Amino acid sequence: MGINCNRVEHFSDNQAVPTETMPPLELHGVCLPPHKTTLEKLRDRLSEIFFPDDPLHRFKNQTCCQKLLLGLQFFFPVFQWGPNYSLNLLRSDVISGLTIASLAIPQGISYAKLANLPPIVGLYSSFVPPLIYSVLGSSRHLAVGPVSIASLVMGTMLSETVSYTEQPILYLQLAFTATFFAGVFQASLGLLRLGFIIDFLSKATLLGFMAGAAVIVSLQQLKGLLGIVHFTSKMQIIPVLSSVFMHKNEWSWQTIVMGTSFLVFLLTTRKISMKKPKYFWISAAAPLTSVIFSTLIIYLLQSKVHGIATIGHLPKGMNPPSSNMLYFHGPYLGVAIKTGIVTGILSLTEGIAVGRTFAALKNYQVDGNKEMTAIGLMNMAGSCSSCFVTSGSFSRSAVNYNAGAQTVVSNIIMASTVLVTLLFLMPLFHYTPTFILAAIIITAVIGLIDYQAAFRLWKVDKLDFLACLCSFLGVLIISVPLGLSIAVGVSVFKILLHVTRPTTVVLGNIPETQIYQSLGRYGEALRVPSFLILAVESPILFANSTYLQERILRWVREEEERIESNDESTMKCVILDMTAVTAIDTSGIDTICELRKMLEKRSLQFVLANPVGNVMEKLHQSNILESFGSLYLTVGEAVIDISASLWKAQP
Amino acid sequence: MGINCNRVEHFSDNQAVPTETMPPLELHGVCLPPHKTTLEKLRDRLSEIFFPDDPLHRFKNQTCCQKLLLGLQFFFPVFQWGPNYSLNLLRSDVISGLTIASLAIPQGISYAKLANLPPIVGLYSSFVPPLIYSVLGSSRHLAVGPVSIASLVMGTMLSETVSYTEQPILYLQLAFTATFFAGVFQASLGLLRLGFIIDFLSKATLLGFMAGAAVIVSLQQLKGLLGIVHFTSKMQIIPVLSSVFMHKNEWSWQTIVMGTSFLVFLLTTRKISMKKPKYFWISAAAPLTSVIFSTLIIYLLQSKVHGIATIGHLPKGMNPPSSNMLYFHGPYLGVAIKTGIVTGILSLTEGIAVGRTFAALKNYQVDGNKEMTAIGLMNMAGSCSSCFVTSGSFSRSAVNYNAGAQTVVSNIIMASTVLVTLLFLMPLFHYTPTFILAAIIITAVIGLIDYQAAFRLWKVDKLDFLACLCSFLGVLIISVPLGLSIAVGVSVFKILLHVTRPTTVVLGNIPETQIYQSLGRYGEALRVPSFLILAVESPILFANSTYLQERILRWVREEEERIESNDESTMKCVILDMTAVTAIDTSGIDTICELRKMLEKRSLQFVLANPVGNVMEKLHQSNILESFGSLYLTVGEAVIDISASLWKAQP
Repeated sequence: MGINCNRVEHFSDNQAVPTETMPPLELHGVCLPPHKTTLEKLRDRLSEIFFPDDPLHRFKNQTCCQKLLLGLQFFFPVFQWGPNYSLNLLRSDVISGLTIASLAIPQGISYAKLANLPPIVGLYSSFVPPLIYSVLGSSRHLAVGPVSIASLVMGTMLSETVSYTEQPILYLQLAFTATFFAGVFQASLGLLRLGFIIDFLSKATLLGFMAGAAVIVSLQQLKGLLGIVHFTSKMQIIPVLSSVFMHKNEWSWQTIVMGTSFLVFLLTTRKISMKKPKYFWISAAAPLTSVIFSTLIIYLLQSKVHGIATIGHLPKGMNPPSSNMLYFHGPYLGVAIKTGIVTGILSLTEGIAVGRTFAALKNYQVDGNKEMTAIGLMNMAGSCSSCFVTSGSFSRSAVNYNAGAQTVVSNIIMASTVLVTLLFLMPLFHYTPTFILAAIIITAVIGLIDYQAAFRLWKVDKLDFLACLCSFLGVLIISVPLGLSIAVGVSVFKILLHVTRPTTVVLGNIPETQIYQSLGRYGEALRVPSFLILAVESPILFANSTYLQERILRWVREEEERIESNDESTMKCVILDMTAVTAIDTSGIDTICELRKMLEKRSLQFVLANPVGNVMEKLHQSNILESFGSLYLTVGEAVIDISASLWKAQP
Repeated sequence: MGINCNRVEHFSDNQAVPTETMPPLELHGVCLPPHKTTLEKLRDRLSEIFFPDDPLHRFKNQTCCQKLLLGLQFFFPVFQWGPNYSLNLLRSDVISGLTIASLAIPQGISYAKLANLPPIVGLYSSFVPPLIYSVLGSSRHLAVGPVSIASLVMGTMLSETVSYTEQPILYLQLAFTATFFAGVFQASLGLLRLGFIIDFLSKATLLGFMAGAAVIVSLQQLKGLLGIVHFTSKMQIIPVLSSVFMHKNEWSWQTIVMGTSFLVFLLTTRKISMKKPKYFWISAAAPLTSVIFSTLIIYLLQSKVHGIATIGHLPKGMNPPSSNMLYFHGPYLGVAIKTGIVTGILSLTEGIAVGRTFAALKNYQVDGNKEMTAIGLMNMAGSCSSCFVTSGSFSRSAVNYNAGAQTVVSNIIMASTVLVTLLFLMPLFHYTPTFILAAIIITAVIGLIDYQAAFRLWKVDKLDFLACLCSFLGVLIISVPLGLSIAVGVSVFKILLHVTRPTTVVLGNIPETQIYQSLGRYGEALRVPSFLILAVESPILFANSTYLQERILRWVREEEERIESNDESTMKCVILDMTAVTAIDTSGIDTICELRKMLEKRSLQFVLANPVGNVMEKLHQSNILESFGSLYLTVGEAVIDISASLWKAQP
């Protein structure tokens, strides 16, 4: 081991004190991190919490004028791509804009029905919010408008308190108010840079949640597909199913036949486009085609067939203002706020995830907090112009991307198309049957059930699968907000469990190296006689300090038993490899101290190897380092140094 | 670098594939942990969660008969020390038993007053529970009886619903029922081996909580010390203080003079014993002495002084049975259960902490789960014999230890002394003034305010200090259960924050070694040209995967800017040191994959070094390892191997 070494100094300031006897052995001291005052630490910590992406870095070393321009571009991304906009880009955007419009119009009407709102609100919501997003948003592929999950949740949560059929004005008021609060909540998450809160809805949780919601939504559409008139407004699986079979006498065979045919048609087009992505336009065009055909059929058969529900009269004209309908007092305010927050979180999660997905595909970056502000402002504006909660829809954004959208101008094209529809084409929807809306909704949500992803979760991470299952069953059986809370609870529990019961492993030396690795995992690793080398894979905190103390003492006991039964040389030293101990608190420090005392009573030396920066700092601040004698930078150096001193002590 | 090396194989089963060109370079493969089925993993995980101390290890390799004896000893520790009990031990236990009895009698009466219960209940509670504990408990120094915090909390929580003065029977019923539920809760925590739940009340939280409770209790004692008759039953600082000053007309100078004198006497004796632990008997004997003197004074002055409240008549005799007073239905059941759980947790935490403290001093081990069962059973039995919540008291246990207690027999001696008092001496307490009880309580709780420990928290860990402050202020201003919940919330938030915003550091090489350490911390560490070596100090989970992705890309961007401004050689490779990444979930795996794709688009190689066992397993199960090419066991080997291949590529 012909390496040059220094004597260990635990408060090492990088001065090497040479040993007296073994000149060739050089140990490395363990350093403290550079000194910082409490205020500096607080500032660093806060900037890491709220500004991890260092949003101001592009303003560094710029002139005042450039800073102004950069600032404008920062707040209104339109100034970033606007100057370079060309006719070529416009052509792509017009094509993709028209494509998503053909999807947005039938889906808008359908999702408004899903939220128990008048169909026209769905069209209003496909006009104003996309325009606002096109000025503020930073994703180039997001197709903005109503989304299924948020619509469903809004419908459920509001219908539990107010019935649209009985109190339509109040229901509308609450819907716009909830939209307003959703916007406020989303914008403040973005402005306060608290965007990381939505990360707590893990992908696993969302997977289960969306599958559960899709099942419920699909079952609810049986109302439209079977032609049932009296249907429950509840959202749990049991009342919905019983509602379907309790009203068998209301089933209408004409509706069933036509609805099922169109559903099969839509599902087939979806299947084709999924198999061959270049035929994306088949599934993109199918909903509008179906709406046109079914409307024509009903119009032609109107004298012969009765009892088929249609949309009926829709008023012509642009979004009426609705700021006077916002509801800021009275008994239902709580419901509106709660609905706003839940739909706000859900639509935000979808919007951000969609934006990030397509940004990654085209290798640009979407700033989460800025997107949240944009989506929030768009919903706040929407709530004042008769729109309900909107976000970036996954299905329409995928179509937008495949149709070759280049910038948010495709949203403007879509909004213009919707405007034309609103101004001139509304009477055409009079005979559109509701079963076609049900079929469109089912086709849209069926893709949310991703059992393959669930299977992958099961294969890779059982606890993730559990979170997924909890949110699935919670939504299906209990309710949307409770199902979500349970799933978030399971995810947080997972983190706590990891910290409460961390892994501890016994390390051994890989021959002819200075590498120490888990004995259980590396067959070639060998125990070092007289040493027990342990690694703790977690921070040492109040939640696990008692456990770790007991567990380490158990390792020591088991090692002693093993040594006794194998008649090996006695244990002299326990080394704790702290490389993966990423934090420590006062309980953890007490545990380390107590362990040292307990092991010393058994005549065992207890040394620490490689504490990370903040752990080292805390050990230093609590003045316990003196009692430890020396700290080592690596397990290897600890073994070399202590072996040498043991050798000296026992000649 | 004259080391022998193998080629890296990411599914390495320890087979070394020699490289073609560089025979002296030997790399080490990264191993998977030994294969286990899902069921085996579940079993291992559950046994680690519920049986970390391997309680059955002592039964291994024993004959049937020995197993029976060990089982008996396991459930009734009395069989462990009983056979070796000697006259010598008995002498020590008698002395310490009598000492703690002299403390237990006045404190028992006082703490019962604190819980708004009749004083005699405090004596009953110092008789039955110690006897039961002496059979079941495994701590040799715990002095069992009523404790201040649990008494206070029970008094507060019950008084908020029922007033003792108005409905004494109902109040008593609820107190016994709460005690019963506290016992059930404690015993089931122990039996279900969920003892780790109390770890979530961190030391910092308890420090703040106890200080807050001590302040409130002391202020409440002003009622007795000032002789106020009408006093609030609330527990927040504002109503208590306003109650003190609103009833100035009720202040009685005789009570104030005598109360203050005795308080000063008691505090002085406490101070003396704290300074010189061998004079522990001074503070131990002081309360009983004060009770005797004050009773004598009041008895002698009874014709001259009026308006001094005394305890009054106390019934003679042993604990009456109270199982018929348990209350299992009706409107107050919820309050009783809630009070039971809160007082159960608090008394358990104190009892376990005290037991562990003295066990560590005498170098024996206390089994947490077994202690919980013992304390729980003792409270269940207590609730059927007119006792309220009891546990191991810190102050009395310290006296017990100092007085030389050797086994739980000292508890039996104490209980016998209390029995003698109950049977024969009760009339003597008739003239005991209540101000002396107030003075005793203040003296007992004042020690709970440990501002030095709080200062240490501030010095070492600011977030621990915040948890402490929150529980202190929460208890003082809001309420006991809410204060505790806030503090537990802060503690859990601390864990989540650590996971949500983990530390990432840039590593450099310490010259002439294979050691890679933080550049910011180790001045001698040097950047490796063409490499960016990052270490993540936390698991990669849903809660931080977005953050880590952004943060790592920011490190890359900053490194590119630095290279550009310094005109150094371009970056070729990003190495992620996974040593401290102690877990990964499906979101984390997706992040790693996406990072690899993003970095590859920038022509940067992305490699992982030293993933720990379970992370490696999950990376393997998710089939992403193929796309990574090679995994390295250490950063050093990664640098050597990749440098070599870069060298080959650019001749």
